[in-house]
Amino acid sequence: MNNALKKPRKIYVTRTVEFNAAHRLYNPDFSDDENRDIYGKCSNTHGHGHNYELEITVSGIVDQATGFLLDMKELKQILEQEIMKRFDHKHLNFDVKELRNAVPSTEMLAVTVWDILTVALQRYINKGITLHEVTIHETRKNSVRYLGE
Amino acid sequence: MNNALKKPRKIYVTRTVEFNAAHRLYNPDFSDDENRDIYGKCSNTHGHGHNYELEITVSGIVDQATGFLLDMKELKQILEQEIMKRFDHKHLNFDVKELRNAVPSTEMLAVTVWDILTVALQRYINKGITLHEVTIHETRKNSVRYLGE
Amino acid sequence: MNNALKKPRKIYVTRTVEFNAAHRLYNPDFSDDENRDIYGKCSNTHGHGHNYELEITVSGIVDQATGFLLDMKELKQILEQEIMKRFDHKHLNFDVKELRNAVPSTEMLAVTVWDILTVALQRYINKGITLHEVTIHETRKNSVRYLGE
Amino acid sequence: MNNALKKPRKIYVTRTVEFNAAHRLYNPDFSDDENRDIYGKCSNTHGHGHNYELEITVSGIVDQATGFLLDMKELKQILEQEIMKRFDHKHLNFDVKELRNAVPSTEMLAVTVWDILTVALQRYINKGITLHEVTIHETRKNSVRYLGE
Amino acid sequence: MNNALKKPRKIYVTRTVEFNAAHRLYNPDFSDDENRDIYGKCSNTHGHGHNYELEITVSGIVDQATGFLLDMKELKQILEQEIMKRFDHKHLNFDVKELRNAVPSTEMLAVTVWDILTVALQRYINKGITLHEVTIHETRKNSVRYLGE
Amino acid sequence: MNNALKKPRKIYVTRTVEFNAAHRLYNPDFSDDENRDIYGKCSNTHGHGHNYELEITVSGIVDQATGFLLDMKELKQILEQEIMKRFDHKHLNFDVKELRNAVPSTEMLAVTVWDILTVALQRYINKGITLHEVTIHETRKNSVRYLGE
Repeated sequence: MNNALKKPRKIYVTRTVEFNAAHRLYNPDFSDDENRDIYGKCSNTHGHGHNYELEITVSGIVDQATGFLLDMKELKQILEQEIMKRFDHKHLNFDVKELRNAVPSTEMLAVTVWDILTVALQRYINKGITLHEVTIHETRKNSVRYLGE
Repeated sequence: MNNALKKPRKIYVTRTVEFNAAHRLYNPDFSDDENRDIYGKCSNTHGHGHNYELEITVSGIVDQATGFLLDMKELKQILEQEIMKRFDHKHLNFDVKELRNAVPSTEMLAVTVWDILTVALQRYINKGITLHEVTIHETRKNSVRYLGE
Repeated sequence: MNNALKKPRKIYVTRTVEFNAAHRLYNPDFSDDENRDIYGKCSNTHGHGHNYELEITVSGIVDQATGFLLDMKELKQILEQEIMKRFDHKHLNFDVKELRNAVPSTEMLAVTVWDILTVALQRYINKGITLHEVTIHETRKNSVRYLGE
Repeated sequence: MNNALKKPRKIYVTRTVEFNAAHRLYNPDFSDDENRDIYGKCSNTHGHGHNYELEITVSGIVDQATGFLLDMKELKQILEQEIMKRFDHKHLNFDVKELRNAVPSTEMLAVTVWDILTVALQRYINKGITLHEVTIHETRKNSVRYLGE
Repeated sequence: MNNALKKPRKIYVTRTVEFNAAHRLYNPDFSDDENRDIYGKCSNTHGHGHNYELEITVSGIVDQATGFLLDMKELKQILEQEIMKRFDHKHLNFDVKELRNAVPSTEMLAVTVWDILTVALQRYINKGITLHEVTIHETRKNSVRYLGE
Repeated sequence: MNNALKKPRKIYVTRTVEFNAAHRLYNPDFSDDENRDIYGKCSNTHGHGHNYELEITVSGIVDQATGFLLDMKELKQILEQEIMKRFDHKHLNFDVKELRNAVPSTEMLAVTVWDILTVALQRYINKGITLHEVTIHETRKNSVRYLGE
């Protein structure tokens, strides 16, 4: 192999998944007027929905032997188990226990996904691989990014 | 003007709009088992949702003086009034009277949009402008097209 | 249900799948010079590759009870079995028996996919559901469409 | 070769090109008030601009020997010569003689591209290859299609 | 609410807007030859144009009560007032006073947008919300990013 | 010119290129079983392929006179010479000497592109312009980012 390639290199790998969910922006601690004022049409009683596109980025040093940061098959399984099963074809206000009593805004969703994946990815910490970024596109026009800060 | 441009020309004009809605695939005439069997995770009790992307195509002869098939500002108003107000940030099973008692699949949604717009575009019939096609992308992978047949 | 929705409606449903494959444009009946002249860099010895995006469109009358043209879970299984298993992560010149002795151009690929799916979808003929169109995007700039003509 | 592949097959091949141009919607035969009324902000004096995305579709019978409908290198040269040189980095109202005295709407542009390419592609007529469709996306939301009718 | 969600979290929220404008790359301090040499076809006399896609990113701590970083309705109004009204359907060389005497390259445009929005977003400073990034896509192939450095 | 625009501004300019290549994930130091276990279908004997989309980002201070970070015509030539000639329509395992004896994963490809461009862009160092980031999208779902760390 090219000797230069043997130097340790820090790489960011991003996997994109999409789930389809309903949500309603509504805070029971606010009056109905406050909810309408703050959330507008996003607080309609029965909710609305989105095709949420998530970009999950992990980072660490490339493994010289495999050429991989990590086994993508494993990452896909984790995202299937932790993200798709939890959020896909669900109503975020009713069906996701991690969001219970929270307003399921894209901001809160990004933070929640971060918290869930930080735990699920702990098995990689001894290899120096960590979660770097969670980006969620709610629509083509609105997205939110969280980096664990 | 270039004389060739004066010949009558049949043009198809497409306007794309996006709305965000929840839906649940569920037919009360079926048993719970049948619903689960036919609709799977799409029949979850509280529904899920999508960013629906609609492509509305109208066709007719270009107006030589304006260079337009029709006034796009008018078409935008019609789509705002008839489509966005009716479907955007709504739960299709509860909030849309045209879909009441129907299974709000993308197929039924496309047909419903066609029926609504056929009426709304009647003012253009004497100019020879008619609705040609309704395409709805439910996700990046699934879409449905209806041409009034 | 809205009575208008009970009229028979002809719908086109499109499912998109993507596979990643290598190919080499090369006809052994041509001389090396002819191959270079006709296929240019596309005839490089070891081949190159693409993310092929396929849009498979079927059409027929919507089922009033389910709201579906056909069971999308079934269509997904057919595409998994007939398209993904056959073409994904393959070298089209070596690994696909249907393309043996053919130049694996996007045109030939579209025709081949049509022929394969026409057979696989025969079970739907008695319901009046037929394959309508196969579109393959080889790159963002080049695509090919076949309608069985 | 698979014998089925030897049957004549009618294929549609689409090539996408993008050009960046300015235009102003304005008809000198109309009063200033009429222009403002019809074209709104699109009639601003100095013009505005777009990334125009063109999809050019030709159709005919696949050549069994090459696997191609036509030599894509040739089609690329024609589009470079006839479309890119004429329209790219130009102001459609000033720099394109085919549009002189016409309102450079997307409709008129599509018709003009059709007329230009019909002439440029005449060399293919004896092979049964003809221009099938010109689609122009002016923005992500507006597009126009012309099929020579 | 999940207690973990109560920790302060720094979030980046991105809103995307698109405007259609003409521009000409030309510096009157350069000779005609220098302009042609530096800007090539981008210096054509009457200008050309683009669909400019802007991604505006603001950052700060999520408001626990609303689940929002900031009221998106307000941000949309600011972008409508400060960006769309100023740049949409305009010729950047003639119609935008902030760009007068500047070469309206994408780089200068990004810096100008940053300067405008920094002022417009000052009302959020006491909430710790600041402009983080301005990205402008001029075409699908060229983009520019400015972070206020 | 607006005086504010005269301050030094650090800009990030991104150019996107796409190449079509085949590759096979396979390490001759591993047994056949290990290769299958680690790389799965990605280790199929004849390889498969992708439309690789590269985003190359350079950064530095905008030149006040030209409005540019650097001459995009030059950057395009460098990418044509160093990236497209080397990788486009190639089989990464056979045709690219920089990847010889390396596993041509997207991670290794990103690092290799970085090393090649760092050398090619040395002519800009005295102007303070440096390579900032290489991002490669292998598919719509998988991408890798390298920043020279």
